[in-house]
Amino acid sequence: MNELINGNVLLKAEFMQPTGSFKLRGALYAISKLSPDQRNNGVLAYSSGNHGIGVAYGAKRFDISATVVVPKDIPEAKLAKITEFGAEIIFYDRGTDDREKIGSDIAKERGLSIIKPYDDIDTIIGQGTCGLEVLEQSSLRLDCAIVCTGGGGLMAGMGTALREKFPSIQLFTAEPIGWDDHMLSFVAGKRIECVKKSGGICDGLLTATPGEKTFAINQRNNVLGLNASEEQVLEAMHWAFKNLEIELEPSGAVALACFFQNREKFKDKNVLITLTGGNVDSEKYLKVFS
Amino acid sequence: MNELINGNVLLKAEFMQPTGSFKLRGALYAISKLSPDQRNNGVLAYSSGNHGIGVAYGAKRFDISATVVVPKDIPEAKLAKITEFGAEIIFYDRGTDDREKIGSDIAKERGLSIIKPYDDIDTIIGQGTCGLEVLEQSSLRLDCAIVCTGGGGLMAGMGTALREKFPSIQLFTAEPIGWDDHMLSFVAGKRIECVKKSGGICDGLLTATPGEKTFAINQRNNVLGLNASEEQVLEAMHWAFKNLEIELEPSGAVALACFFQNREKFKDKNVLITLTGGNVDSEKYLKVFS
Repeated sequence: MNELINGNVLLKAEFMQPTGSFKLRGALYAISKLSPDQRNNGVLAYSSGNHGIGVAYGAKRFDISATVVVPKDIPEAKLAKITEFGAEIIFYDRGTDDREKIGSDIAKERGLSIIKPYDDIDTIIGQGTCGLEVLEQSSLRLDCAIVCTGGGGLMAGMGTALREKFPSIQLFTAEPIGWDDHMLSFVAGKRIECVKKSGGICDGLLTATPGEKTFAINQRNNVLGLNASEEQVLEAMHWAFKNLEIELEPSGAVALACFFQNREKFKDKNVLITLTGGNVDSEKYLKVFS
Repeated sequence: MNELINGNVLLKAEFMQPTGSFKLRGALYAISKLSPDQRNNGVLAYSSGNHGIGVAYGAKRFDISATVVVPKDIPEAKLAKITEFGAEIIFYDRGTDDREKIGSDIAKERGLSIIKPYDDIDTIIGQGTCGLEVLEQSSLRLDCAIVCTGGGGLMAGMGTALREKFPSIQLFTAEPIGWDDHMLSFVAGKRIECVKKSGGICDGLLTATPGEKTFAINQRNNVLGLNASEEQVLEAMHWAFKNLEIELEPSGAVALACFFQNREKFKDKNVLITLTGGNVDSEKYLKVFS
């Protein structure tokens, strides 16, 4: 990869977290910021999967109860991890249901605190530890960072942390084509909503619009948008399997796909790429690539 | 894994090295210890694959030439990496040829320095950096370490490093059944030779007998032997793919397989497991598990 761009590539292997994605960072931090009373009443998350795993994991670590609202088409691997960490599961339909409404109704009824997936300052700060960790792990001067993006929380947190040390770093969101609401919104200068609400292999990145708080932060950080097709994402997953001996989920391979598609942009640069998640159904994965 | 043994498990992810295995450690150190003249004449390695990749990588880093003697049945993934790092390749037959003789004849003829795969003090010291790195990365008190073992170099180097900090740590070699020469040798108190010379899925661990130097060190370090069947190794590989999102080669999954087979031994312990390599033919891998 270094030779490809005549520069240096750093890969942040967040798929290796105990939850299979970076999402435990925001969940743990947000849960830690609740008052003891709030916390002991339990927490609720609505999530395409990875944030739900993060919150279930966080709740288990704090020894409190968790309820997670997930889409009916959630990959089995993600569902299994939420169950493994002992959370209660409630299903919604991506196409027709409003998961935020379902979540807030249940939270009100049961007295639970909602741990938001991205548009919350504590969640954003928690995801930011991923950026702080990169700065601890490497002394390389970073020119660019490409971050897999759904609601924009990881980009907001990491980007802010990275810019603290490297004020002129160019940050890029990486999204699947059709759900590239960040890319469109950066160009339009305001939050744009994508038409599609469901479908697509990047099940973790199917947010229709950037978060309000995350977008304000990402705009201030001069973030630009990149996108990749599903075919390019699959190619990146296969490449990672063959060359890095790792199994990424589609949502966790978008930044890698965007790197390959835009290699000319990264000539002579030092580039950080996030590999954000690996929670994919192994049987399906094996079938697709064999 | 922690819950399984009511303890703590550390996984050392050496398959993520740029060479796909830990072998670059010994190769780099041994090459660095040559005199400038020796080094500039070039190096030679005989290897089942991973040590060859390590030496090819090391030679490239030192900008010198490398010749690597490998078995005819070397996995394509390993051959491709040796070629990628620019080494010249010479084939031998595992069943009939003496690779050490082939290697030393060519080395003499061409004036090359041999970088031994395990039975050399510099190679052992280099592999030892894997143990030093574990001590840097974690402050956990280690009770046991399970190390994938072919000729015993990694065990000798890592074991010595780990015992420096934890004098009472119990070290275990992990070998495939049929090539468990270390396990037999520890019991017999002398180097025992296995009958089999070829075959078997653990292509990186098919050494018939422990190294002379490595065995002396491992004996002094009170190492014990564990073994696992090929079926158990395949199960461990599949488990790692499904639960850790990683692709291990059989030789790199033996320690994990031995951990699962001997879980009772590790009750209430803090255990380090090496995941030593991931250089496996992806197409074959996908076929086996799908």
